Amino acid sequence: MKTHTLLMPLDMHLHLRDAVMLETVAPLSAYSFSGAIIMPNLVPPVDTKEAVVEYKERIMAAVPNDFFEPYMTLFYKNYDKAFLADVAEEITAIKLYPAGITTNSEGGVSAFDIEEMRETLDAMAELGIPLCVHGETDGFVMDREAEFMSIYELLAQNFPKLKIIMEHITTKAAVEMLDKYENLYATITVHHLILTLDDVIGGMMMPHHFCKPIAKRPEDLDALLSVALEAHPKVMFGSDSAPHPQSAKESCGCAAGVFTAPIALQLLCEIFDQFGKLDNLQAFVSDNAQSIYGICPEFKEVTLKQRTFVVPEKYGNVVPMFAGEAIAWAIESVD
Amino acid sequence: MKTHTLLMPLDMHLHLRDAVMLETVAPLSAYSFSGAIIMPNLVPPVDTKEAVVEYKERIMAAVPNDFFEPYMTLFYKNYDKAFLADVAEEITAIKLYPAGITTNSEGGVSAFDIEEMRETLDAMAELGIPLCVHGETDGFVMDREAEFMSIYELLAQNFPKLKIIMEHITTKAAVEMLDKYENLYATITVHHLILTLDDVIGGMMMPHHFCKPIAKRPEDLDALLSVALEAHPKVMFGSDSAPHPQSAKESCGCAAGVFTAPIALQLLCEIFDQFGKLDNLQAFVSDNAQSIYGICPEFKEVTLKQRTFVVPEKYGNVVPMFAGEAIAWAIESVD
Repeated sequence: MKTHTLLMPLDMHLHLRDAVMLETVAPLSAYSFSGAIIMPNLVPPVDTKEAVVEYKERIMAAVPNDFFEPYMTLFYKNYDKAFLADVAEEITAIKLYPAGITTNSEGGVSAFDIEEMRETLDAMAELGIPLCVHGETDGFVMDREAEFMSIYELLAQNFPKLKIIMEHITTKAAVEMLDKYENLYATITVHHLILTLDDVIGGMMMPHHFCKPIAKRPEDLDALLSVALEAHPKVMFGSDSAPHPQSAKESCGCAAGVFTAPIALQLLCEIFDQFGKLDNLQAFVSDNAQSIYGICPEFKEVTLKQRTFVVPEKYGNVVPMFAGEAIAWAIESVD
Repeated sequence: MKTHTLLMPLDMHLHLRDAVMLETVAPLSAYSFSGAIIMPNLVPPVDTKEAVVEYKERIMAAVPNDFFEPYMTLFYKNYDKAFLADVAEEITAIKLYPAGITTNSEGGVSAFDIEEMRETLDAMAELGIPLCVHGETDGFVMDREAEFMSIYELLAQNFPKLKIIMEHITTKAAVEMLDKYENLYATITVHHLILTLDDVIGGMMMPHHFCKPIAKRPEDLDALLSVALEAHPKVMFGSDSAPHPQSAKESCGCAAGVFTAPIALQLLCEIFDQFGKLDNLQAFVSDNAQSIYGICPEFKEVTLKQRTFVVPEKYGNVVPMFAGEAIAWAIESVD
């Protein structure tokens, strides 16, 4: 049976939440990843230096050892340069949410007025702080990401020295932006390398496949696979693993988010192996992110084996993607 | 406050199910409609003369008076002419399902081989039996209806004397077919005059807005409204009201179907009034259907009034569309 070893896997887009949920999910990511970019959309959002420092402390207290680095982010607002210079050493990036677009994003940006954002974004470029963006408009659900491309273009053109990460991209339109602007990068989730809208509502309605951005069309899936499988140097793995209690996912009016953190590397091995591209997985899951962010993660060596792994029905009160189903790769050891 | 009277409202596409569910939902339709085309997708499907006659008896036993006519349909298979001539007086139409495309459609048509279907469809044309079609392919969920247009064209061209009803249309593509072939007609549901995909998965995931065909794009909604509000003479109201027990709708892997029968006329008044088209509602909800099918429904006069009506949370164990919400019109009297 095949084995495959990954060095310093990184999850460049992760929701750890807080309190009991944090204690449930943080150890699962810490087990198999060297580090992760931690999203700041708590209630209230992480938007002060103290909030960043204290949240990082709570994360570190929730993980069982020191071999996991939470790369902290700040919730985007228009900050002044002095504040950013002061907070810079505590954060790895700043995450921008359009207001109200996803879970706990009410305090986000409601209009992309470049002049109002200029001081903040110029200072970020100067300080080397990347801007991570949830790129969706408030338009029709299948068009939201494609409609946002003009805002990415505006940002990329106005701030050529700012690294802009298009988070959890789901469309051919976003893939096509990668080679158009030098300063645009992207993360891709594992579920968006598997699902289309058919898997959400094509047969029965599947709440555990419901996320934002929603999974799109078959041709979008193909475009995402093409850059992920080749480990396009501007593309990184970011799970967007987003835990919700089972009750919030399986009720009427279910919350958006797919929980994949504990099965992400196994699924990635399955996908990359299936397409004969296992050799590119190291770049997709770690090397590209190290180059783009200029980070040096803690050493971790994860060995996976091609053998059946039945996904647990639950982790705590969180139902993972593919709960109870068999996937083709399992984690064999972590050193 | 405005009132509006409708004569002999007809629901040209209705699921009444069987047994306890039939007893729950049939009286609700019988209250406000003169008659309805009854779908044959029971388990097993209604595909013999005896099954038609017996199902009709069960329906009549479930409704509290005689002022409701169930227009029976047969589940489409390739039948011979002698059988069709014998069953003709018991049925109003034959309903064709592509195999496996929706609830209890496993025994449907799996390939549209015109020559294999010719005897049946020629006999139907000769006997004056319309063909009602669930027009979806097994393709990507947003494309299924548009992809089916070539099959409608094949049927319409090969059987010019057969009346073909495109059931519960949801797309601009289907609307555009209406004026292209003389023998193509359509039903439209009330929920497809209200919803787009945004209302299903654009915010939270809404199981009570989940149906097949799925609600489509804003431009599709506009196209449907344009022909419904003008009461295009080839378009009829058909609710596709599809009850499921609450447990099947609000669980993981929710069943497809929106339950609207008891609120359909109220919602239609609200929509037509909102667009200043109340005068066209009579044609949409009865007159067009009478002309197309050549039926003379039982007399019924339904008067609606523009006053707040709070939709019940449940009818039996079935949650209706807009449960607990206020709509702007209510049924005032039925004579």
